[in-house]
Amino acid sequence: VPRNELELISWIRSRVAHDPNVVVGIGDDTAVLKTQETLLVTVDMLLEGVHFDLAGCTARDVGQKALNVNLSDIAAMAGRPTVAVVAVGMPNGRPETLADDLFAGLLDAAKPFSVTLAGGDTNSSKLGLVVAVTLLGHPTGSGPVRRSGAKPRDVLCVTGRLGYSLAGRHLHFTPRVTEAQRLHENYRLNAMIDLSDGLGQDLFHLTDASGCGALLDAGAIPIQPSPPGWNDDRPPLDHALYDGEDFELLFAMPEPEAQRLLRDQPLRDLGVAITRIGIITGESAVLLRDDHSTRPLLRTGYTHSW
Amino acid sequence: VPRNELELISWIRSRVAHDPNVVVGIGDDTAVLKTQETLLVTVDMLLEGVHFDLAGCTARDVGQKALNVNLSDIAAMAGRPTVAVVAVGMPNGRPETLADDLFAGLLDAAKPFSVTLAGGDTNSSKLGLVVAVTLLGHPTGSGPVRRSGAKPRDVLCVTGRLGYSLAGRHLHFTPRVTEAQRLHENYRLNAMIDLSDGLGQDLFHLTDASGCGALLDAGAIPIQPSPPGWNDDRPPLDHALYDGEDFELLFAMPEPEAQRLLRDQPLRDLGVAITRIGIITGESAVLLRDDHSTRPLLRTGYTHSW
Repeated sequence: VPRNELELISWIRSRVAHDPNVVVGIGDDTAVLKTQETLLVTVDMLLEGVHFDLAGCTARDVGQKALNVNLSDIAAMAGRPTVAVVAVGMPNGRPETLADDLFAGLLDAAKPFSVTLAGGDTNSSKLGLVVAVTLLGHPTGSGPVRRSGAKPRDVLCVTGRLGYSLAGRHLHFTPRVTEAQRLHENYRLNAMIDLSDGLGQDLFHLTDASGCGALLDAGAIPIQPSPPGWNDDRPPLDHALYDGEDFELLFAMPEPEAQRLLRDQPLRDLGVAITRIGIITGESAVLLRDDHSTRPLLRTGYTHSW
Repeated sequence: VPRNELELISWIRSRVAHDPNVVVGIGDDTAVLKTQETLLVTVDMLLEGVHFDLAGCTARDVGQKALNVNLSDIAAMAGRPTVAVVAVGMPNGRPETLADDLFAGLLDAAKPFSVTLAGGDTNSSKLGLVVAVTLLGHPTGSGPVRRSGAKPRDVLCVTGRLGYSLAGRHLHFTPRVTEAQRLHENYRLNAMIDLSDGLGQDLFHLTDASGCGALLDAGAIPIQPSPPGWNDDRPPLDHALYDGEDFELLFAMPEPEAQRLLRDQPLRDLGVAITRIGIITGESAVLLRDDHSTRPLLRTGYTHSW
């Protein structure tokens, strides 16, 4: 069981499959990669006590999530993930399998998307477990789908169902990599983002970037069923808007394209429904309409502050 | 003064200069970059309490170092750095300028090498300050200089002087990016590594990767003068071998090339001497020779364990 950086690096190297595009992988000063002309890059850090608590999940869960949140970002651009590098801070005095479990989780998450772990940095930590994954990828089809391309009268859609992620999906979710590529290949997507902070915040990221507004249809938002035993006073819609960590896709597309897509339901074989939840408007406001009223959407969700 | 992730991202965006190779920078789900066919990638994480202590340095120092250690890795491949992405964990209850200072330091270090900050991830931290920088770059000249190309009878050289980094250079050093490119452009380098863990460990990384050994000439190793007021019982040579964080270059090259290089001293205008410190051998042992004896070099240096 690796307990220092040299042992850990050797343990990981023995578990990484050959990738012809990784000219130099783990074990030199930098990785050397063959890449296409356009590269996608994203990074996410998970910190013990903020993003996870090892009383409530395993190190393997943490490793999986650390890569999956990055895969979700690549998905949001309709990209194809290729290579990851990982920096970790390993705390002392923990179960001796902590490092193996963490990296086993990273490799679990890498496998379905053929992502190669090409390098990293291993440190001891006096601060609890920290893992930062940087993921590279390439665009697919006509190029990266940005947040900024939404146009007035575009239809807003989401994959899957939103809310109640803390019941478990925040740790165990399928990053929508395959789904995003399939959508981008077959339909014209004007803008896309993954829902990590919650629809009530990420929709603003999309409309701000696009210089437009939106009108959400409250009754249309697909909400996860309230988990068994879950009991609180918040309306289910609030969970769907503000819980965050749904890791579903929110995207905007021209009306005729949306009609075709909603009729096709092209992700049905993956068990993923696509739902129309509103439209993009030329105003700057983001509004929520239900049977009784139309009111500004409260802009909130998880924001890190210090 | 930014105190949450949205304010911080906006503060940073306003300070990043335009880079034509950064198609999408800070503010989307991933960065989108124009790149060459061969890409260098490296990542390093600095953790409070392990790599630095904010009683003994500023957050700006930490930001500078966080990028400089990565620049040193790119230098070790004789690469040209291009783009960085940064993940941070920001602790609560600290001076309100902590985030500004950290990023000011990162931008300080980026500027001399025209590195663009293209994205990142900002988090609150219950674990103290954490910063992980991923740096991309391109090879120069005939390609990346690896650790693995040293050959028996190659001459081993180092830039600068080694030891006593804790007196200050561990925080304030010049990553040898320019130096490495100039050497690689004008001389045949068979293998290179940057001295981060100390010569007494990094030399083994180079010989292990190259499948060879080495004979070091103890009297030839250029040692930093002992800092004023510094008082300990360790011989200066031990400081040069084992302190680590020199961030100088160690490289191996054919004898005739080394003779030419040592005569030219091509880094003199940068104030950097190059010194011959030994040779590569066909044995697997790494030996240290002084006036009295030849003995195996103790393989040690800073190793993170947990």
